[in-house]
Amino acid sequence: MQHGMTAEEFQTVIDRMLPFGQGFGFKIESLGHGRAVVRMPFSPVMTRPGGTIAGPVTMGLADCVMYAVVLGMKRDAVMAVTSNLSIHFLRAPKPAAIIAEGKLLRLGRRLAVVEVTMYSEGEEEPVAHATGTYALPTQSQAEGSAVP
Amino acid sequence: MQHGMTAEEFQTVIDRMLPFGQGFGFKIESLGHGRAVVRMPFSPVMTRPGGTIAGPVTMGLADCVMYAVVLGMKRDAVMAVTSNLSIHFLRAPKPAAIIAEGKLLRLGRRLAVVEVTMYSEGEEEPVAHATGTYALPTQSQAEGSAVP
Amino acid sequence: MQHGMTAEEFQTVIDRMLPFGQGFGFKIESLGHGRAVVRMPFSPVMTRPGGTIAGPVTMGLADCVMYAVVLGMKRDAVMAVTSNLSIHFLRAPKPAAIIAEGKLLRLGRRLAVVEVTMYSEGEEEPVAHATGTYALPTQSQAEGSAVP
Amino acid sequence: MQHGMTAEEFQTVIDRMLPFGQGFGFKIESLGHGRAVVRMPFSPVMTRPGGTIAGPVTMGLADCVMYAVVLGMKRDAVMAVTSNLSIHFLRAPKPAAIIAEGKLLRLGRRLAVVEVTMYSEGEEEPVAHATGTYALPTQSQAEGSAVP
Repeated sequence: MQHGMTAEEFQTVIDRMLPFGQGFGFKIESLGHGRAVVRMPFSPVMTRPGGTIAGPVTMGLADCVMYAVVLGMKRDAVMAVTSNLSIHFLRAPKPAAIIAEGKLLRLGRRLAVVEVTMYSEGEEEPVAHATGTYALPTQSQAEGSAVP
Repeated sequence: MQHGMTAEEFQTVIDRMLPFGQGFGFKIESLGHGRAVVRMPFSPVMTRPGGTIAGPVTMGLADCVMYAVVLGMKRDAVMAVTSNLSIHFLRAPKPAAIIAEGKLLRLGRRLAVVEVTMYSEGEEEPVAHATGTYALPTQSQAEGSAVP
Repeated sequence: MQHGMTAEEFQTVIDRMLPFGQGFGFKIESLGHGRAVVRMPFSPVMTRPGGTIAGPVTMGLADCVMYAVVLGMKRDAVMAVTSNLSIHFLRAPKPAAIIAEGKLLRLGRRLAVVEVTMYSEGEEEPVAHATGTYALPTQSQAEGSAVP
Repeated sequence: MQHGMTAEEFQTVIDRMLPFGQGFGFKIESLGHGRAVVRMPFSPVMTRPGGTIAGPVTMGLADCVMYAVVLGMKRDAVMAVTSNLSIHFLRAPKPAAIIAEGKLLRLGRRLAVVEVTMYSEGEEEPVAHATGTYALPTQSQAEGSAVP
């Protein structure tokens, strides 16, 4: 039977393998049952004209939480890659931490589709919403991967 | 009549206002007539498992070239913000520079839609393709903005 | 203060103004508070190779429920138009009715962003998920529109 | 070696297997080398409030030309299914025929990514732009399919 990573294991993936997420201080807060929550602390380096958080940083956070959802279902899918990602920016995020909540929409044999909703910490209305597809590694690729 | 920024002016926007693009060394190569080309040099900090360039970095490059296309049409639209962005990852980029080519699909009064095709430098087949919408500032917003 | 349409009023919009929805028998089941549910009965004319429901029909249903959400918030926005729509097909729908649930993500002055999840009637797992943006009419456009 | 369908063969697919496309009179105009052109004649049944062509009809046309591009590369991929589709509506189409031009962005073993640009016949500026992914059938699925 297929096992997924724990939150602790996924934090190790961020810290060792995702320089982008490691650099921006991404922390996995929970992982399991097709859901994941990742928190990104605020840093002035993330800003863009208008004082809000730059879109690419938010997109990187969305991508990371999708990856978390995938590895939370299939621990040997480290070589999964983003196939596509579509994001709507809803409100200018405040200069505050962002909480990203991922939810599995579909886990197939070859593709996983995940939805992500992002909030400024402490706020009720989302700042961004994303959906995306990860292409899962084939069995032979997965066997060759360096699962932590 | 509406004037757009020159490539030199947009480089100043990157260097002063976009820490993400400045940090990854984005350079505008050409700008005008609804088109823009931005080059991102390769750096090991961009990598992800598998040795390829991380998706968020590519997404940030796509977003930057869309912004360039917008400011190349309307120099006073510095406060334009990404409304949505949709990207397809087509091939794993090599550890090499990426060239992003933006093309205006539609410039309306309130929205601009831009298409971006990205290549590993020297290659013919694209590594990624994105489309996105920028919401343009209203006249009163634009007048208050700090155009360089 | 802004009022939205009732379900009965939106059904009139479908039947009089949306030949696509009228032809496929779309029925609004509930509308209000940023949410809408539209039911599409099954018909053999909707099928594609493999016996499942054709993508365009599902996309049309997604678009209709987004429009319902918008008009359920702003009854004078009949001239609102789809600006973009992004859909993921998750599972091949059975030859059965589809229930589409729309949820408002953001209502701005110029744009509304809506999320739609679609299910084969009686099933728990979604068959498709869509997000999209409607461009809202300006006040002068809305005043000139033929609100039923 | 892999062969693709001819335009004549794909027209047979439309007429026999795609009731949506057949009903709206879709005609394939050219097919080959990763490109396809499909023409949709205008019909009053396609309209929506404002007198323009309804979004779902345009989305159906985009989906059809993507399918044409796929079958123009791999004739045994009749069971390919749309995995996702993202469309931007750029200008309100006139009450006139729409010409949809599809272009292959990537043909992988499991996925094909296609871009589509659509024009009102005789116009230079596009009315809509779409990108999408088709999931290709596995070898065993393809062998079981009813290739015309």
